[in-house]
Amino acid sequence: MFSSETHAPPPKRERTRAQLREIALRSFRERGYDATTIRLIADEAGLSVGTTHYHFPSKHHLVQELYLDVQESHRAAALPLLADTDDLVERLRIVFLTGLDGLGPFHPFAPEFLSAAVSPRSPINPLSADSAPALGIVRELFATAVTGSSQQLPDEFAERLPDALVLAHLLLALFWVYDRSPGQERSRRLVDRGLRLLKTALPLVRVPFLRAPLRELLDLVGEVRA
Amino acid sequence: MFSSETHAPPPKRERTRAQLREIALRSFRERGYDATTIRLIADEAGLSVGTTHYHFPSKHHLVQELYLDVQESHRAAALPLLADTDDLVERLRIVFLTGLDGLGPFHPFAPEFLSAAVSPRSPINPLSADSAPALGIVRELFATAVTGSSQQLPDEFAERLPDALVLAHLLLALFWVYDRSPGQERSRRLVDRGLRLLKTALPLVRVPFLRAPLRELLDLVGEVRA
Repeated sequence: MFSSETHAPPPKRERTRAQLREIALRSFRERGYDATTIRLIADEAGLSVGTTHYHFPSKHHLVQELYLDVQESHRAAALPLLADTDDLVERLRIVFLTGLDGLGPFHPFAPEFLSAAVSPRSPINPLSADSAPALGIVRELFATAVTGSSQQLPDEFAERLPDALVLAHLLLALFWVYDRSPGQERSRRLVDRGLRLLKTALPLVRVPFLRAPLRELLDLVGEVRA
Repeated sequence: MFSSETHAPPPKRERTRAQLREIALRSFRERGYDATTIRLIADEAGLSVGTTHYHFPSKHHLVQELYLDVQESHRAAALPLLADTDDLVERLRIVFLTGLDGLGPFHPFAPEFLSAAVSPRSPINPLSADSAPALGIVRELFATAVTGSSQQLPDEFAERLPDALVLAHLLLALFWVYDRSPGQERSRRLVDRGLRLLKTALPLVRVPFLRAPLRELLDLVGEVRA
């Protein structure tokens, strides 16, 4: 009955990994992307570079830990608030704004993260295969926000809305990197404007002659996300 | 009566500058951004690094020459075609597609240009003050496409459309960097889809109850471009 424990990784290995991960997450938050190096993390942990590499073969692996940490915190912040309202627009506001809250501490380093991540060849590109688990959390959050709302959309819109929202979230994050207003309030205003637009546009999905352009719009989003 | 010539820069200086510029433009096209260096350009011109720096203090100044060259070619390709049609959607198609044509040769190096230019702190960011002349050519092209069309839009839309189109152009260029389809045909399809959407949506600017959401949309674009 203890056989599963026999196959579990040795606790020391897990502890070392967790320690390195914590040091790296703190370093990204305090020093940013460029100044965080495997050597620095090894030094702070009192371990050799070789041992550190054994757990995290490159800095990119540590950035993926950061992405997961940010998105798990995003989910933990959003879910309790989602329990309070079944209004679609308010639910989306919660997901967008808790997302911005979580990014906040990284704003001073956002340009260097963006430069490192933006290339389609970068292993830390948010759309890369390696980043899929973190982006999956965001998609699931938007899907939860849509399905748990009292407004029932026509199926073809409800099914495709989460992908459109993930795209909006990524574009919002891009805008946020450029946002020099205090506390990035312009990014929040952009969320407000976008949601006001959605609120005005939502009843229109039931207007027959507007179905075609709205379907075109979702096709366009589908093309971008493909 | 020849006094203006006395103040003109010496022809040799101009010739040297033009020569360095040509070598740099060819190098960006053939080697990309990362592999193009001031030293390499100096070597190819048979000049010292010091002389080269005198004309172009940094690689960024050469990238600005590239931006201007790309956009002047864009304008030269688009204007004769614009003379052939007064249909708004077709005129916009011309500006978007000649823009993609001009970018084509740079596609293999697009990820490295993007990484170097994407930071809001980068002097070669397309939205930076240094890049304003090149982006101004694009804005003027879109404004020409709108004002020369037979469709007259309500003033509030006609005035704000060019900025929205420049934003669409920048987002299209971002999509194009990620486009791995042969000849970047997906980027062209995206233009088709976007224009089909615009064509369906254009008559709606005259529908009173749709004015508000369309105004919201342009407000949102204004917020992004501010």
